Amino acid sequence: LDARAMAKAQAHLDELTKPPGSLGALEDIARRLAGIRGEVPRRLSRKAHILMAGDHGVVAEGVSAFPQEVTPQMVFNFSRGGAAINVLARHASAELVLVDIGVASDLPELPGLLKRKVAPGTANLARGPAMTREQAIAALEVGIEVASAKIEAGNELLGIGEMGIGNTTPSSAILAVFSGRPVEEITGRGTGVDANRLRLKIKAIQQGLAINNPNPDDPLDVLAKVGGLEIAGMAGVILAGVAMRVPVIIDGFISGAAALVATRLAPLAGEFILASHLSEEPGHAVALELMGLKPMLTMQMRLGEGTGAALGMTLVDAAIMIYHEMATFSQAGISGALKS
Amino acid sequence: LDARAMAKAQAHLDELTKPPGSLGALEDIARRLAGIRGEVPRRLSRKAHILMAGDHGVVAEGVSAFPQEVTPQMVFNFSRGGAAINVLARHASAELVLVDIGVASDLPELPGLLKRKVAPGTANLARGPAMTREQAIAALEVGIEVASAKIEAGNELLGIGEMGIGNTTPSSAILAVFSGRPVEEITGRGTGVDANRLRLKIKAIQQGLAINNPNPDDPLDVLAKVGGLEIAGMAGVILAGVAMRVPVIIDGFISGAAALVATRLAPLAGEFILASHLSEEPGHAVALELMGLKPMLTMQMRLGEGTGAALGMTLVDAAIMIYHEMATFSQAGISGALKS
Repeated sequence: LDARAMAKAQAHLDELTKPPGSLGALEDIARRLAGIRGEVPRRLSRKAHILMAGDHGVVAEGVSAFPQEVTPQMVFNFSRGGAAINVLARHASAELVLVDIGVASDLPELPGLLKRKVAPGTANLARGPAMTREQAIAALEVGIEVASAKIEAGNELLGIGEMGIGNTTPSSAILAVFSGRPVEEITGRGTGVDANRLRLKIKAIQQGLAINNPNPDDPLDVLAKVGGLEIAGMAGVILAGVAMRVPVIIDGFISGAAALVATRLAPLAGEFILASHLSEEPGHAVALELMGLKPMLTMQMRLGEGTGAALGMTLVDAAIMIYHEMATFSQAGISGALKS
Repeated sequence: LDARAMAKAQAHLDELTKPPGSLGALEDIARRLAGIRGEVPRRLSRKAHILMAGDHGVVAEGVSAFPQEVTPQMVFNFSRGGAAINVLARHASAELVLVDIGVASDLPELPGLLKRKVAPGTANLARGPAMTREQAIAALEVGIEVASAKIEAGNELLGIGEMGIGNTTPSSAILAVFSGRPVEEITGRGTGVDANRLRLKIKAIQQGLAINNPNPDDPLDVLAKVGGLEIAGMAGVILAGVAMRVPVIIDGFISGAAALVATRLAPLAGEFILASHLSEEPGHAVALELMGLKPMLTMQMRLGEGTGAALGMTLVDAAIMIYHEMATFSQAGISGALKS
């Protein structure tokens, strides 16, 4: 990051009519934007939220409360504008970019849908590798390509989110590898599995880790063996953000797993990632802590799609307004702090 | 609250294309709005943020990092639009309503300033009662009057915030009385006092509680003896919200103390209060827990003015959009959950 721009932003923030640091995360965001962009933009002229959809062979183990057909059904719903992320992207004035990177079934041409299918879902990670290394790379490249195009079109903030029945399972598997924590501790109920399915889910992850033996020092190996196509796609979006110096706001547990992969592939990536909410999934706090990120929203959300990221975008707008629109102490003629 | 309207809202929320409950606080807000208003409004046509300014005699004990003259200086800044709350009220499309309920110095006519001074600041609570019982009632009534006028003008959501050098001191005193917790545990650094001033602050509160002996079973007694004019004014805003069935979104520690007073005066008030952020002040979490409220934002903010409440207003807008704009499962043709 641009240390000089950050120091300049900090100096300006400390001149604004408030005690130093008292706007917390709003100030952190402004400082970080300065470091990424070289200055705090006057406003975010365009924002894009990239939603990657993909399926997971591991659903054969009974790890999800919903059938796999919900993935394509939700893609139709996104295309027609009826899902939560459609509403919240509209609330944040962000364009929704919908990508089929690995839905198991064939999808027709749909309004707003980018067809970039790398494979019709992953293989069952509990029985062997979820993807080949080549597939994982291809999915990363889809994310890089889609994000690069959106950045070239003038978007100054990207959000990421996903749709994929079963995808908290590979996310927990990825986190288990990188954190070294026991699977039971970082595996949750996803969109709402009961105790029985939770047991199946933990068993599937443990079995997948034992069979595949992913190498924590080789992030691509982890991504390919126990990851997912939409997770790789989101990691690719982050890598494009790093390369083209655009911040990426992440959502909950699954995009957090993608962010972990990205930060292992490119350690500087953490500086370009903004955390949005803390999800109900128990592993999410662990993933954020590994990356040194602090969530801004605690709303007991566990939907995915990027719903938390979209809400977080409005906080980034607020941070930019604070930076540019507040008066300084000298403009307002306000006294400074007393000596103790 | 209207239990039938809440049940109807819950049924609608459960038909939307998401796992039940997966939007957490956004669903809670929609349900609560239904209970307060009888239905979830299509949108909040108008929102008002009421900022009460008042001074505190206890600053003579050296409890604040800033001199008392900052209170009127900031009122000028609010009137000219240069403070953080001006920016964030604009971000939330809310009108800012500025009230001098007890600034120590005389203020001229200023654009947007309502002059409702009950007294030129409180007396020093460390040496005797901060207010008479009559003053506390008059300040409550100012809040009720200002809020009622704004509700009659069509505002469907009120925010509260404050300006008053030294006002975390009476807030900690109020919380100490109602929570029974030790003063040291629930007293923090406010806008940034050092260790020396923090010791003076704790001593002033302990002394004020010993001298005044406020009766926890008589909320008006607590408010008068160790409270503040702007704290009473904010409590009045909440009481008006309860009476006229309009939700009130609170800010950080000081408006949290006002909310505590309001909920002790009118136990139903808690149902009409929405929490916004969790402030850095250690007592804030204690106050919210006493009222059974959960904050939505964790942004390490400690500025006051209602900055967190203004950010929270945008989340209320999001909740309303979610309720009205998402598709239902049957509209979208999406499969339900699997049997276990």
